[in-house]
Amino acid sequence: MTNREEAARLDAIDPLAAKRGAFRLPDGLIYLDGNSLGPLTHAARAALEQTIDVEWGDGLIGSWNTADWVGLPRRIGALIAPLTGAEPGDVICTDGTSINLFKVLSLALDLRRTRSRVVSERHNFPTDLYVAEQAIARAGHDQQLTRVDSTDELDRWIDDDLAVLLLTHVDYRTGAMHDLARITAQARAAGALVVWDLAHSAGAVPVELRAAGVDFATGCGYKYLNGGPGAPAFVYAHPRHHGTLDQPLAGWFAHADPFAFDARFEAAADMRAFLSGTPSVLGMRALEAALGVWVDVDMTAVRAKSIALCELFIATVEARCADSGLMLASPRDASARGSQVSFCHPQAYAVMRALIEHGVVGDMRAPDILRFGFAPLYTRYVDVIDAADALARILEAQLYQAGAHGSRAAVT
Amino acid sequence: MTNREEAARLDAIDPLAAKRGAFRLPDGLIYLDGNSLGPLTHAARAALEQTIDVEWGDGLIGSWNTADWVGLPRRIGALIAPLTGAEPGDVICTDGTSINLFKVLSLALDLRRTRSRVVSERHNFPTDLYVAEQAIARAGHDQQLTRVDSTDELDRWIDDDLAVLLLTHVDYRTGAMHDLARITAQARAAGALVVWDLAHSAGAVPVELRAAGVDFATGCGYKYLNGGPGAPAFVYAHPRHHGTLDQPLAGWFAHADPFAFDARFEAAADMRAFLSGTPSVLGMRALEAALGVWVDVDMTAVRAKSIALCELFIATVEARCADSGLMLASPRDASARGSQVSFCHPQAYAVMRALIEHGVVGDMRAPDILRFGFAPLYTRYVDVIDAADALARILEAQLYQAGAHGSRAAVT
Repeated sequence: MTNREEAARLDAIDPLAAKRGAFRLPDGLIYLDGNSLGPLTHAARAALEQTIDVEWGDGLIGSWNTADWVGLPRRIGALIAPLTGAEPGDVICTDGTSINLFKVLSLALDLRRTRSRVVSERHNFPTDLYVAEQAIARAGHDQQLTRVDSTDELDRWIDDDLAVLLLTHVDYRTGAMHDLARITAQARAAGALVVWDLAHSAGAVPVELRAAGVDFATGCGYKYLNGGPGAPAFVYAHPRHHGTLDQPLAGWFAHADPFAFDARFEAAADMRAFLSGTPSVLGMRALEAALGVWVDVDMTAVRAKSIALCELFIATVEARCADSGLMLASPRDASARGSQVSFCHPQAYAVMRALIEHGVVGDMRAPDILRFGFAPLYTRYVDVIDAADALARILEAQLYQAGAHGSRAAVT
Repeated sequence: MTNREEAARLDAIDPLAAKRGAFRLPDGLIYLDGNSLGPLTHAARAALEQTIDVEWGDGLIGSWNTADWVGLPRRIGALIAPLTGAEPGDVICTDGTSINLFKVLSLALDLRRTRSRVVSERHNFPTDLYVAEQAIARAGHDQQLTRVDSTDELDRWIDDDLAVLLLTHVDYRTGAMHDLARITAQARAAGALVVWDLAHSAGAVPVELRAAGVDFATGCGYKYLNGGPGAPAFVYAHPRHHGTLDQPLAGWFAHADPFAFDARFEAAADMRAFLSGTPSVLGMRALEAALGVWVDVDMTAVRAKSIALCELFIATVEARCADSGLMLASPRDASARGSQVSFCHPQAYAVMRALIEHGVVGDMRAPDILRFGFAPLYTRYVDVIDAADALARILEAQLYQAGAHGSRAAVT
């Protein structure tokens, strides 16, 4: 059997294979960029049509009640919860990831105001560091951000002066994944609060927020959750913090009784305390519908297929692209990797452009990283073989414009 | 001629009459709640279809570039600018009004850190006061919020200790409108910064931000701008502040070069400095398309028709509903009123429910305010007469369930 025949056999027995039918993928395209923007689902398309024509068009203002637009943040939170090992009331959908990070960080800094150190990683997603600097400056507790260069270095700073540990679970460039349970336990044992950014985790790898005792987390709606471009994000808080969610961006929807229009703020007792203003209904309806695809999905099966896809890609690329200048940038150990594989190549920009022209969509991150995301709900084993083949052909025949530069092959 | 015949004559010669065709209004419904949620336009519907099927569905990640999703915040800002007397580069679309208020207030408080007083109105929209309290607490400059009860009382506080004056131009309950130019001039003469919330102004009344020298403003996309439920909001900053827009919620889209993924933040030199994370594309595309309706509209004509509609409504209601318990809650002087008319009635909730059942949609604000918004682009003079007639019939025959209570006849 050729590799492709073997891949086709794996697709034939894949328990998640039927899920691909939920997505509206362009014919002939191999889409390995769901870690940046998940594809359209038939359900999201239908929900948007209903929202636009029936709810907004016909129902107008009344749809806040009749279509329960008011309930969207909590309804969506309840759908995301099982994907992150949380209970329905632990998660709420609102605003974007940067904004939500500011909320949870500000809150966490206040809760540990007598401790002076905040630790994150130098190569964390830039927004997380910008937000951390700002939240620290505005909290006014004389706290400082320490940026570490490696996971090993973290140990050094986990002590009784650590206020907040802010980490992204899966690295956006390399796909390197932290041991969330171990690090959380260690930081909590030292009395620190832990904030995880799950942008590249939710819907990609199993996460057990409750079991790990994670204090706060944020995550993204438009990557593996397929909520659409710029979809609203989510926030998680452990129940031990509910009832005292005193965050700095509370707007009228965070009030215990928003429609009393009370001039004095009184926070909602539940996760609604994380809301600001009016929910973005179009984005939320798309995300809510897209999340429907997960209701009967076991994250263990997702993880198993994710690892199999990634391993197959690494093995096939390395077998076919030897001496091509490609170098694996992701951890080789599957347990330390998310649902993404990255390779370095000195001509990454040009190679990715050529790949896209050949119908394989990944993306690149400056200066030299080729990223390939493997979303198990719609990626087939044969796609992996075909993508690796296309990459091998392009490198072997140098079907790329050597010397082309840029960092915008595809964004976010 | 009857009043209705006269109204029909006014519609026949209305220079804005043709604009009604741009909206997809349900047959037979008189919609006087565009001050809460503007109706669907054919343009927004078409743009959303294109965005969902072609840009997201087919174009996927590439649409950030090919459909210029990245440019949405500035493109929309440029469309809103002329409606607020600003230049295209003065306005940007992002996040929600509450979040944007936190940004501009924090910035303004820092710029006037040596002054201790922040002044707003006790009956301002609640979110504005919640956000002011939080921004003050986090700025850490020993500043305090003073809430005044009336416009007259403002004068007392405009002195050399005033840091920031935060006002909503048009009151959400009564439609009372401040003299933006006069108050801005007075506060600026005292060296204070002025922040205006234009939620009920943009697209409703002429606003001259540049001419008045306003420092900062925020506004809403889903009311008179018809951007759809929970549409993204906008921020304005006077060019004297550009280049120093050091706001606390800057995310990676606010960076001078977002796609360099630089761990050190360097703010964009223009209004992009107000951005946080990834723009909410669905909401923005709807808003962008809906704003197309304004390109050939003169705000002077909008204001003239708005006043005529409001005056006709007040006169007709007062003539037909004498001794019904209704009392005008809006200023009688048109120059002190936005594009909304409010009446008090002890059974406001029950009366509004009955009105909605009779096909006239306004809303109510607890405890006793009936609100009617008049959006000149799609409201006809005959609608005003018919709405007043329906109200008169309901009150006269007591076609409402006296004693019914609630505050959720319609929200936001």
